[in-house]
Amino acid sequence: MHVVIIGGVAGGMSAATRLRRLSEEIEITVLEKGPYVSFANCGLPYYVSGEISERSALILQSPEQLKKRFNIDVHTETEALEIDRQAKNVRINAKGKEAVINYDRLILSPGAQPVVPEIEGLAQATNVHTLRNVPDVDKIVEAVKQEQPKQAVVIGAGFIGLEMAENLKKLGIDVTIVEAAPQILPPLDEEMAAFVEKELKRNEITVYTGAAATAFKDAGKTIELSTGEIIKSDFTILSIGVKPSSELAQNAGLEIGLRGGILVDESYRTNDPDIYAVGDAIVVKQQITGEDALISLASPANRQGRQVADVIMGGARKNQGSIGTAIVRVFELTAASTGLSERQLRNDKLDYKVVHTTSKSHAGYFPGSHPIVMKLLFHPVSGKIFGAQAVGADGVDKRIDIIATAIKAGLTVTDLPELEFTYAPPFGSAKDPVNMIGYAAANILEGFSESIQYYELNAAIENGALLLDVRNPDELKNNGALPQAKNIPLDELRARLDEIPNQQEIIVSCQSGQRSYLAERILKNNGFTVKNLDGAFQLYSMIYPQEVIK
Amino acid sequence: MHVVIIGGVAGGMSAATRLRRLSEEIEITVLEKGPYVSFANCGLPYYVSGEISERSALILQSPEQLKKRFNIDVHTETEALEIDRQAKNVRINAKGKEAVINYDRLILSPGAQPVVPEIEGLAQATNVHTLRNVPDVDKIVEAVKQEQPKQAVVIGAGFIGLEMAENLKKLGIDVTIVEAAPQILPPLDEEMAAFVEKELKRNEITVYTGAAATAFKDAGKTIELSTGEIIKSDFTILSIGVKPSSELAQNAGLEIGLRGGILVDESYRTNDPDIYAVGDAIVVKQQITGEDALISLASPANRQGRQVADVIMGGARKNQGSIGTAIVRVFELTAASTGLSERQLRNDKLDYKVVHTTSKSHAGYFPGSHPIVMKLLFHPVSGKIFGAQAVGADGVDKRIDIIATAIKAGLTVTDLPELEFTYAPPFGSAKDPVNMIGYAAANILEGFSESIQYYELNAAIENGALLLDVRNPDELKNNGALPQAKNIPLDELRARLDEIPNQQEIIVSCQSGQRSYLAERILKNNGFTVKNLDGAFQLYSMIYPQEVIK
Repeated sequence: MHVVIIGGVAGGMSAATRLRRLSEEIEITVLEKGPYVSFANCGLPYYVSGEISERSALILQSPEQLKKRFNIDVHTETEALEIDRQAKNVRINAKGKEAVINYDRLILSPGAQPVVPEIEGLAQATNVHTLRNVPDVDKIVEAVKQEQPKQAVVIGAGFIGLEMAENLKKLGIDVTIVEAAPQILPPLDEEMAAFVEKELKRNEITVYTGAAATAFKDAGKTIELSTGEIIKSDFTILSIGVKPSSELAQNAGLEIGLRGGILVDESYRTNDPDIYAVGDAIVVKQQITGEDALISLASPANRQGRQVADVIMGGARKNQGSIGTAIVRVFELTAASTGLSERQLRNDKLDYKVVHTTSKSHAGYFPGSHPIVMKLLFHPVSGKIFGAQAVGADGVDKRIDIIATAIKAGLTVTDLPELEFTYAPPFGSAKDPVNMIGYAAANILEGFSESIQYYELNAAIENGALLLDVRNPDELKNNGALPQAKNIPLDELRARLDEIPNQQEIIVSCQSGQRSYLAERILKNNGFTVKNLDGAFQLYSMIYPQEVIK
Repeated sequence: MHVVIIGGVAGGMSAATRLRRLSEEIEITVLEKGPYVSFANCGLPYYVSGEISERSALILQSPEQLKKRFNIDVHTETEALEIDRQAKNVRINAKGKEAVINYDRLILSPGAQPVVPEIEGLAQATNVHTLRNVPDVDKIVEAVKQEQPKQAVVIGAGFIGLEMAENLKKLGIDVTIVEAAPQILPPLDEEMAAFVEKELKRNEITVYTGAAATAFKDAGKTIELSTGEIIKSDFTILSIGVKPSSELAQNAGLEIGLRGGILVDESYRTNDPDIYAVGDAIVVKQQITGEDALISLASPANRQGRQVADVIMGGARKNQGSIGTAIVRVFELTAASTGLSERQLRNDKLDYKVVHTTSKSHAGYFPGSHPIVMKLLFHPVSGKIFGAQAVGADGVDKRIDIIATAIKAGLTVTDLPELEFTYAPPFGSAKDPVNMIGYAAANILEGFSESIQYYELNAAIENGALLLDVRNPDELKNNGALPQAKNIPLDELRARLDEIPNQQEIIVSCQSGQRSYLAERILKNNGFTVKNLDGAFQLYSMIYPQEVIK
């Protein structure tokens, strides 16, 4: 049997090596359009700044190594031009020479490619780069060296955009980020992304949100934005997203679904039983909703590649879908998410509850701990976990990985406090942030706490609610406060209950939400009607800084 | 209702504060024998070296704060002397004065106390310390300051013993560790603990295993060991374990179980329906086996305290048991475990399989990654996860926390590759170490790989197996090799199959086990009878260094 694989990075190469581990008999050929297979595409931005200092570190395996170790025939700079499904062959352009290669089974792992929109003047711009592979990064590094840009613009504030912004800034270049959406980092919700935007600005990066590039002038040196601003750029990165590289599949008559993704069944079979597809190019199921999705992440691509090899060799594997776990380091801050965001839940019209907590990355009494702000989304009745997001300087990856595990395992928020984690002062707390947010969510689920979100506060006050801030007066002075809030410090609350109107709804707030929950309980147990401002002043002031007085 | 709580640290204080959050009506009294409540007992060793520099950091809440914020009456230096269950009161000694305090419900959270064995001369030794609370650490810090010890001995190489050894060493004191068991860190298996022992020795700490202290001479200045050695000590820490502080409960006629632990039902009720108990003093269920266990860890104690408050206020909470997740930092290395060890599985006569992997803490192409050696124990048919252990310089806590979550969720080893983790180069890999060990275990479960353990190798060779080392010759030279091994580098294996006897069992080995698995697959697919030496040369040479030639 001859298995031909088109695309030699994550999914394709995982399929190839697993196939060889399953059989010494079959012939395995990998066709890769670019000059390298199995390269570290997630590492490319860090090579720009030199944080990854050796170019060779980006290239994980060579065709020679793959031949020696796995007896796999790898052809780089070899583009698949056309699939003849009747004849079961692929017409290729191998370093300029056309040829035809026969297959018994074909695996498509073409990946995704940067979206390049039609914008006035973009085709004439000479300083605009996209980043997807080693030749791209070579061009970027060479351009930075030759042109010594002073001012760079990154269009698109997704993961790659933010990584490029950080790495260009580390080279001493002034960086401006332009994002068409109302916020940066669209996989996160706005209040969580706001922490990242603050970190970008702390590092003197200019950020425009709700601003699309509408025209490139002066060969790209001038960029006009939809907001009317005109910005200068010596060097532009275009990173507004990716789309499946599915032209070959489409031309071969294979079924195409959501936004150009290749349609496959649970066993990665296309509508041609001898042709399989994996990786960024395929339509997968969002595992939580069961809906079609395109998820461009290395981890699912690798898993799919390995599974399709098993399927081809007669094994029973099923794609269980993806939940979309992702992370980005932005200077001193880390932001990560897993599962569905609040925006997605709202779009999908799913019932949900949300809770935010702020906890230390490890025991507060041990040096070096940092706050982690977490958000958990869950079903209001069953407690099923829909998603989570976190930002912080340390320990963010661990907490999101744990919740990703909990989601995959079908746990509910009431299971989170039951989880038993490693605890010694350098690593965690007796009640880990994951336990804590589980408790907080369970309190809502079980009716011990009722919360409102930052975006609901103003309407509640307009409807007659009283905002009660239970921080200490010096905190109000130092951190700022909302003018409409009445202040009674938590530790004085029991003694000053007579100052609180009992015919009015009370909304309690503090700095991050822990003391306000205690206040909520005191007031509830004294017969008041009370809700907790989830995330408290910290979150509200992040989104509405103009309403804060100091 | 008046709830009296005996013991004001983890379990007791969690119960007290949760009770107040549930009700403003009830009276809550906490009786604490020592001078402090709610102190950071897991932080005490780090205060000895000054890594935690402020003593005040160890004391998390004062009685005054607890009164103000929670309206809880906390009495420190107040010992409960006797419980009169008929009269429902506790006789106490409050700072020298006896009194009687009535209760409606009583919660016992007395914790555990250091085991002090009867050893000749121990009572006369003036330089022997145990460490459980703030007064203990005050004495230790004062003694170190006054006596300027040059040579310290730590008896008992559990978590606290190792933490004390590290912190004393950081003060410039020569440290010797004496452990009666054949290995240090008994919660880990010997081959995993061996990495920690190596790290201790690298930091010039002397380690005696299989050596019990049999006599203290010269007021403790001389210690005789069961092995015949005589060692000198200016300063000794005795940390051979803890036992439940259950005398009060026992004297009150409450039922006592395993090794002095207080017996409670799933709702923390003792045999007296008005008396509850939580924390280190109670017998719990080992959640994986369902067997009785004593688990002295802060995390379960905190959870139990909160749950018993709910139970007393009419809530339905059940202790689901504990799996015993733990971690220790030893200089540059971290060691952690969750669930059952191989030793426990063997003692419990449970069928199990084991697999070891070595993976990078994050993408190898990004600076700063370190190897993590992991061990996974699972059921040979169902794949149910029994336990895991890991050692490494970074990222150990995250991987063990994830597997602890998987165990609590009832996942199997085949679920581990399905987990989707945060991946960007600073944080992980497209195939995380947890995914990788899941693949490795699934390969065993599904029959793609058969492995033998380091302790089975010599018998296999005696029975006629051939050991085949597939590393490169320079690795054998640099790292050492086993004299009985035949060497064929992996990349030459296909070409040199005729050198391998096909009537003999072949056992393949490499450095850490990844290449040997590839060799196993090549040989299996060519019809050989072959097994993989799990953990390969790295693990074998860690346990049997004397058999290695260089």
